[in-house]
Amino acid sequence: MFSGAQVSLYPMSRDFVGIILDAVGSLDPYRDRLRIETDDLSTLLVGPPEVLFPALTDLFVAAARSGEHCVLSAAISRGCPGEPDDPICGVGIGDGIKAPLSERIARAIASVANTPVTGQPTAAQFSLYVLGTGNHMDEIYGCIDFLKQSGTFDRAKNFCTKLRGDAGAIFATLQEAFCHFGPPEGHVTLDITVSANSPTKR
Amino acid sequence: MFSGAQVSLYPMSRDFVGIILDAVGSLDPYRDRLRIETDDLSTLLVGPPEVLFPALTDLFVAAARSGEHCVLSAAISRGCPGEPDDPICGVGIGDGIKAPLSERIARAIASVANTPVTGQPTAAQFSLYVLGTGNHMDEIYGCIDFLKQSGTFDRAKNFCTKLRGDAGAIFATLQEAFCHFGPPEGHVTLDITVSANSPTKR
Repeated sequence: MFSGAQVSLYPMSRDFVGIILDAVGSLDPYRDRLRIETDDLSTLLVGPPEVLFPALTDLFVAAARSGEHCVLSAAISRGCPGEPDDPICGVGIGDGIKAPLSERIARAIASVANTPVTGQPTAAQFSLYVLGTGNHMDEIYGCIDFLKQSGTFDRAKNFCTKLRGDAGAIFATLQEAFCHFGPPEGHVTLDITVSANSPTKR
Repeated sequence: MFSGAQVSLYPMSRDFVGIILDAVGSLDPYRDRLRIETDDLSTLLVGPPEVLFPALTDLFVAAARSGEHCVLSAAISRGCPGEPDDPICGVGIGDGIKAPLSERIARAIASVANTPVTGQPTAAQFSLYVLGTGNHMDEIYGCIDFLKQSGTFDRAKNFCTKLRGDAGAIFATLQEAFCHFGPPEGHVTLDITVSANSPTKR
């Protein structure tokens, strides 16, 4: 199944170009498992979720360690019927997704709990979109159940859910939301905003 | 129908706080027609599309006129079944949306052509999500037909469409995509990225 993301990194700094270029170096260990293309708006990363989300974590943490206020924004997609398949994406996202909702929620909570800590405090918000089905809200509400038990839940906002925690747990939460809700072969997308070092109080 | 956006502005500048605060002043003329709430990640704007998109245009152009590289990122939504209705959003988005696809495309093209010029060169990309229906790709392909004739079409990218042109025409294109594709009372969202003054070549 085709999966990937259009990713942008916004360091609120005079040296934003240097911070972005340094952070992009953290993608080097993933280059044999991701297709990477950059233009003036975003960087395309094509590859399976289990590679994509750790790569996003490393990219974000590298930028945030500059100490500047940095935001990573991305549109993440799997199973879009308009996209050609790509062998780099592998064969699917596993049988886990076919399990009943309660079982998927339990597995997702365990995955987040077992994610290594990066030491980078992070705030995030995201929207999960389940496309091409008439009952998309059932999966959304199931995902919200998971989020509330994920350890990263901050609060519900209009149009999105806000998370707070270590960058590792935040991206693990996003990966679980992306992989375990919505039909196994369905079209699912995330719209994510991940922020560090904001001068604005919560 | 409930409609609105979570909007973030990213000036890649040491003076990002000043640029954001100045730009937010451009929302003042809309304050009686939009509900506005800010936290450390985004600003919520709740109101009808015909108010929301001009407000976004003014916000973006005000920030871009700083001369710094600025990006506006937003999740825009209408008809989400999980949101309570709000009187500020009005009664709907008009009968136009019930017209056949070819007629909607023609009206959308005319609307973009008639939009005042701001003088701000702009690049953008966005994804349109039509939720809760089994035939969402028909509306997506109809929207792509419109985009190709909109005068702002740059190119198709994975997961999104890239636009280029004056800020006025860009936001008008986004408004038409949001209002005229997908079911009249359906759940439709946009994930938009709008950029000015990037040092990166196209």
